[in-house]
Amino acid sequence: MSDPLRLGIAGLGTVGVGVLKILRDQADLIAARAGRPLVATAVSARSRDKDRGVDISGLAWEDDPVTLATRDDVDVFVELMGGSDGPAKAATEAAIAAGKDVVTANKAMLAHHGQALAEAAEAAGHVIRFEAAVAGGIPVIKALTEGLSANRVLRVMGVMNGTCNYILTRMQSSGLPYQTVFEEADKLGFLEADPELDVGGIDAGHKLSLLASIAFGTRVDFAAVQLEGIGNITIEDIEQAADMGYRIKLLGVAQMTGRGLEQRMQPCLVPDSSPLGQLEGGTNMVVLEGDAVGQIVLRGAGAGEGPTASAVMADVIDIARGIRLSTFGQPAAGLLAARGASSAVPAPYYLRMALMDKPGALAKIATVLGDNGISIDRMRQYGHTDTAAPVLIVTHKTTRAALDAAISGMDVTGVVAGRPVALRIEQV
Amino acid sequence: MSDPLRLGIAGLGTVGVGVLKILRDQADLIAARAGRPLVATAVSARSRDKDRGVDISGLAWEDDPVTLATRDDVDVFVELMGGSDGPAKAATEAAIAAGKDVVTANKAMLAHHGQALAEAAEAAGHVIRFEAAVAGGIPVIKALTEGLSANRVLRVMGVMNGTCNYILTRMQSSGLPYQTVFEEADKLGFLEADPELDVGGIDAGHKLSLLASIAFGTRVDFAAVQLEGIGNITIEDIEQAADMGYRIKLLGVAQMTGRGLEQRMQPCLVPDSSPLGQLEGGTNMVVLEGDAVGQIVLRGAGAGEGPTASAVMADVIDIARGIRLSTFGQPAAGLLAARGASSAVPAPYYLRMALMDKPGALAKIATVLGDNGISIDRMRQYGHTDTAAPVLIVTHKTTRAALDAAISGMDVTGVVAGRPVALRIEQV
Ligand SMILES: NC(=O)c1ccc[n+]([C@@H]2O[C@H](COP(=O)([O-])OP(=O)(O)OC[C@H]3O[C@@H](n4cnc5c(N)ncnc54)[C@H](OP(=O)(O)O)[C@@H]3O)[C@@H](O)[C@H]2O)c1
Ligand SMILES: NC(=O)c1ccc[n+]([C@@H]2O[C@H](COP(=O)([O-])OP(=O)(O)OC[C@H]3O[C@@H](n4cnc5c(N)ncnc54)[C@H](OP(=O)(O)O)[C@@H]3O)[C@@H](O)[C@H]2O)c1
Repeated sequence: MSDPLRLGIAGLGTVGVGVLKILRDQADLIAARAGRPLVATAVSARSRDKDRGVDISGLAWEDDPVTLATRDDVDVFVELMGGSDGPAKAATEAAIAAGKDVVTANKAMLAHHGQALAEAAEAAGHVIRFEAAVAGGIPVIKALTEGLSANRVLRVMGVMNGTCNYILTRMQSSGLPYQTVFEEADKLGFLEADPELDVGGIDAGHKLSLLASIAFGTRVDFAAVQLEGIGNITIEDIEQAADMGYRIKLLGVAQMTGRGLEQRMQPCLVPDSSPLGQLEGGTNMVVLEGDAVGQIVLRGAGAGEGPTASAVMADVIDIARGIRLSTFGQPAAGLLAARGASSAVPAPYYLRMALMDKPGALAKIATVLGDNGISIDRMRQYGHTDTAAPVLIVTHKTTRAALDAAISGMDVTGVVAGRPVALRIEQV
Repeated sequence: MSDPLRLGIAGLGTVGVGVLKILRDQADLIAARAGRPLVATAVSARSRDKDRGVDISGLAWEDDPVTLATRDDVDVFVELMGGSDGPAKAATEAAIAAGKDVVTANKAMLAHHGQALAEAAEAAGHVIRFEAAVAGGIPVIKALTEGLSANRVLRVMGVMNGTCNYILTRMQSSGLPYQTVFEEADKLGFLEADPELDVGGIDAGHKLSLLASIAFGTRVDFAAVQLEGIGNITIEDIEQAADMGYRIKLLGVAQMTGRGLEQRMQPCLVPDSSPLGQLEGGTNMVVLEGDAVGQIVLRGAGAGEGPTASAVMADVIDIARGIRLSTFGQPAAGLLAARGASSAVPAPYYLRMALMDKPGALAKIATVLGDNGISIDRMRQYGHTDTAAPVLIVTHKTTRAALDAAISGMDVTGVVAGRPVALRIEQV
């Protein structure tokens, strides 16, 4: 058996501790599979004295992750601190400069700096792997980069933020409003320190931008992801959608269209009988569509100590086994910038608005839609005690541009109170 | 870019033609991802003149796949003929002896000779890959060998024969009896030349034995798979199961127990709300359970030209990328024979029997069950015009051994007509 592969681990939070536990508990199993032992040699975190539930007394300690990343007794730098910039980026850059391979779970860093980091690593002959950064324990980076390598990818979809899916399915099962369930999730510790990362779709958007790069051979372009959070979803939307046979999901979709690469992370309606529609709670699901393979669905835990550490360690074991792939599946230096397309692919939409109690109000709305080439599939108006009545419309296929024009037009009519909510109905 | 990787393809049926089409249509995409071009140099099939819908005029032809496998201009031998022995095995052995890597879709050959072939290949420093052999387009070999490499695997389950799942779900949706649907499937060309390979569970059993070897680090042991086909499943079983919230699936389960490795391929009841329960038609699903990652579910097309060729080509691209793993995830020479355990893991069972119209008949059955330590969860007796009345029993958790003893005991009572049908209710 060859020499041990030596890991320097920066960050001993949820994921870092999970990695140390796997290294401790599965040493023999992993050595048999990897063909060599894997050992942690040095670690770094903010506070040295915190009890982390694993014994780190045998490991070297570094206060500064940059120093850790460049130690002579480290072959692979494992970055588990988080944050798009700051110490995570500085230490990753230092590791690459010092000739180390890198494994990270940090989607924020890669969504913003993945291109530059990958180019630097590949120029130096080193690898950056990030299975844990997307959909936690699900081996989706591997499935896409390697499993579907012979396919032209048609579309990638995913429910990749467990907190949002928890909130949406909990609203549905309990009938409680968004704000109440949001506060529940907060108390349960499901939310990031900045909750907008979750409910604003940013975290899931980071993940989508990484998948899109691999799927379409383009440079990571997080800025081009159309982001929409779940904060405007009401319990009425959820119940109406259910009534029509749909579920509302924070769904990421990346698709190459005639007009360019479309990347969307937004609440969508999906059929309740589809695998995506049936996904409950904090579980993640990714759907990969290839021209040869058809549709592949992957489902599993998107977060948590065990699942995330499982993915980090799979990357490390790949490196120990001599698997050395380009970060995004092809040499980063050769990746082209994708032209970004904004919701070019037509779809039916769900529209909810509050219609004022004025004569001919509904006719005005219907006219505005018609003027923008949008035809109505179904419409419902509800009884009301207020001055404004809730109206739901499901359109036939239309473009987001036509819909936005119609929504602006509705504003001008003066019969709609507030801004209509428009949710795409994704064909999954 | 490096030299092309040269493929010799034996077998130009469904899968072989699919591979040639991908090589023709995706040459640039694949070269970019693999870092080198992939080209077919030589092919073999039985009849040279058959029109196969792809142009093979530029490729060398060999009548004998063994000759093909040893050609100087072949780097990777791609075996797509099928059959556990005969030319597939002879050519694979010849390829290994001639220093070639091998990619195959042939689960029958690997279930019977995988251990010997892997040892020979690894001794010579060559690889055998077989992603397409298990669950077609789903990258499950990769997910298990690489994605879950840091996990102690707890259980592997799968619906891996699309024909059986088609028959069972079609019976349910149509209400038609087994024999009628079987004949339908035959007309649609869904059945192997020897239908027992499908409906007898043999094909799916081959696949299970390969997954079990990777999952538990043991030698492939197809002979130890407890095989039961779907031929005894009646429309009544399906309807009764549905009534109780279950679906009947030909389900493979491999699990390491205190008594040894349990491998079962048999019709089981699974909850209709579970991903396995919801699987309709010819689609495949594999469930992987690891101690760190929890449950990962993979779903996709288990057969067909495109999906199967996608998996074959993923293996070839892996080789082009320099990924060189042991066939079963660890060196074959070091794999141990697993002690085989027979249904050691207790489960509730569904029992159907025809009870004769004799006084105290039901009491006798209940006594026999009780004598064997089996308690009854639910029981139903149906109205009847015959001399024998259908009785359904769902037991509490019990072992298969206790159940078999009870079934023998029932025979002695003389109140049961024919042999009871016993189906395991798998907790998924
Ligand atoms: N948690 C999940 O389920 C999950 C899933 C997928 C991906 N991820 C990603 O994995 C990464 C880590 O997540 P986590 O949940 O494990 O985070 P966490 O529990 O907050 O842990 C972060 C760790 O980083 C350390 N750290 C922070 N700043 C540091 C600095 N300047 N120098 C040295 N150490 C520093 C912290 O030290 P102290 O402990 O001393 O404060 C802590 O140990 C993030 O990129 C996250 O997005 C997490
Ligand atoms: N079909 C699927 O969806 C699928 C899915 C997963 C795995 N597989 C596996 O893939 C393999 C191929 O399946 P398939 O469906 O493509 O089979 P197929 O359509 O029956 O094709 C078999 C091919 O092998 C050729 N062949 C047979 N004996 C030969 C010999 N002695 N010398 C040279 N060529 C010979 C045949 O030649 P002729 O054409 O001249 O008769 C034919 O081209 C099997 O191991 C199967 O289990 C298939």
